[in-house]
Amino acid sequence: MNKNKSNELAVILVSGGMDSLVTAAIAHQLHHRLAFLHLNYGQKTEKKELQSFHKIADFYNVPTEFREVIDVSFLRQIGGSSLTDDKIAVKEYKGESKEIPDSYVPFRNTHIIAMAVSWSEIIGATKIYIGAVYEDSSGYPDCRPSYYQAYNQLIREGTKAQNIEIITPVIYMKKEEIVKKAVELKAPLHASWSCYANEDEACGICDSCALRLRGFARAHLEDPIPYKQRPNYT
Amino acid sequence: MNKNKSNELAVILVSGGMDSLVTAAIAHQLHHRLAFLHLNYGQKTEKKELQSFHKIADFYNVPTEFREVIDVSFLRQIGGSSLTDDKIAVKEYKGESKEIPDSYVPFRNTHIIAMAVSWSEIIGATKIYIGAVYEDSSGYPDCRPSYYQAYNQLIREGTKAQNIEIITPVIYMKKEEIVKKAVELKAPLHASWSCYANEDEACGICDSCALRLRGFARAHLEDPIPYKQRPNYT
Repeated sequence: MNKNKSNELAVILVSGGMDSLVTAAIAHQLHHRLAFLHLNYGQKTEKKELQSFHKIADFYNVPTEFREVIDVSFLRQIGGSSLTDDKIAVKEYKGESKEIPDSYVPFRNTHIIAMAVSWSEIIGATKIYIGAVYEDSSGYPDCRPSYYQAYNQLIREGTKAQNIEIITPVIYMKKEEIVKKAVELKAPLHASWSCYANEDEACGICDSCALRLRGFARAHLEDPIPYKQRPNYT
Repeated sequence: MNKNKSNELAVILVSGGMDSLVTAAIAHQLHHRLAFLHLNYGQKTEKKELQSFHKIADFYNVPTEFREVIDVSFLRQIGGSSLTDDKIAVKEYKGESKEIPDSYVPFRNTHIIAMAVSWSEIIGATKIYIGAVYEDSSGYPDCRPSYYQAYNQLIREGTKAQNIEIITPVIYMKKEEIVKKAVELKAPLHASWSCYANEDEACGICDSCALRLRGFARAHLEDPIPYKQRPNYT
């Protein structure tokens, strides 16, 4: 056990995807005590993501009382996104773009982090780790570094504890760096899931699959999860 | 109809209490178009509050498609508050205090406002009115003016629209000023509900009843809603 680890309790937002996996691996390096939070917001692949969440939690020995799954299906009610609205098909990847994608749930990360802050106050956690990525996967306004600076200010103003801080350890990484970091930290990549469309075999063509496969291609590594098709993204 | 009213669509957070009633009345003075948002977070008096919400919405002619009620019972799941946890009794009022009350849901207003921001992006609203009160009802960190400044910065950073702004028109008012403002604006005080404990007759002794009754006493006015008991708060 690393003697330099902090004994602070850290909440990790674990969707089950690769970014959150690496975020958990980094937090595991730095903290003795981890608490995992998963949000079910009515996404199409929720069952698979929840499996990934528990596999990753098992891998890092997160105790049951520090695994929390919160149903945030009110986001579906608010609507307006292909991630939460069954009537809108998940769009195929059309190459890199600075446009805000269709799968955008307005202000989604604000809801998700607010859950983490509320839970942190209750269990006494002082750090919140989130696998937001600015350059590579983004276009979402709530993935920008300045957004997280603003959120940390809001936490200082709006909590009793005032000592809770959001950490975004992969925010400046490209997808291929995330893949390499996962390998370096021996994170269980096989347990993660990124596809927005399928639960048995990843579709290979949704935005999230495309970004993931391109990351592996650029890292010159093979993705261990099953795909229905593996287009050659470069 | 007031020709100087803005045609901007404004979302009003309407709990059904007196502060949100006066906030709605002020927004009605300034805007042609109002949208009402109510959050059901598992409070004990939810049914009564929802009735008040619709009575107030009827009074201000808010169309059905601009009335939204969102179930945020995940706050109950996170727990830790007498407002959402049936195991903790609602405490009696013990006089003014700068202590943070027991009925505190950690970071609650952040969740509530995030709903309003998401909904505003979808329906194209540019103002969010919330009846937060700093001096009189407070002790909650998320009722401080600096909290709302920080939140407005977060909205600018975290939304596509970037033009949505939180307005807190009663934040510097004392309860008796809110009562007087309600009367001045002919707001339907009889339709509002503040009691945390009862739904038929207000208990008269919970924090919220005490603050309300003291506000009426100091305004030298009589509260039109029924009470089980009316202690003499001064």
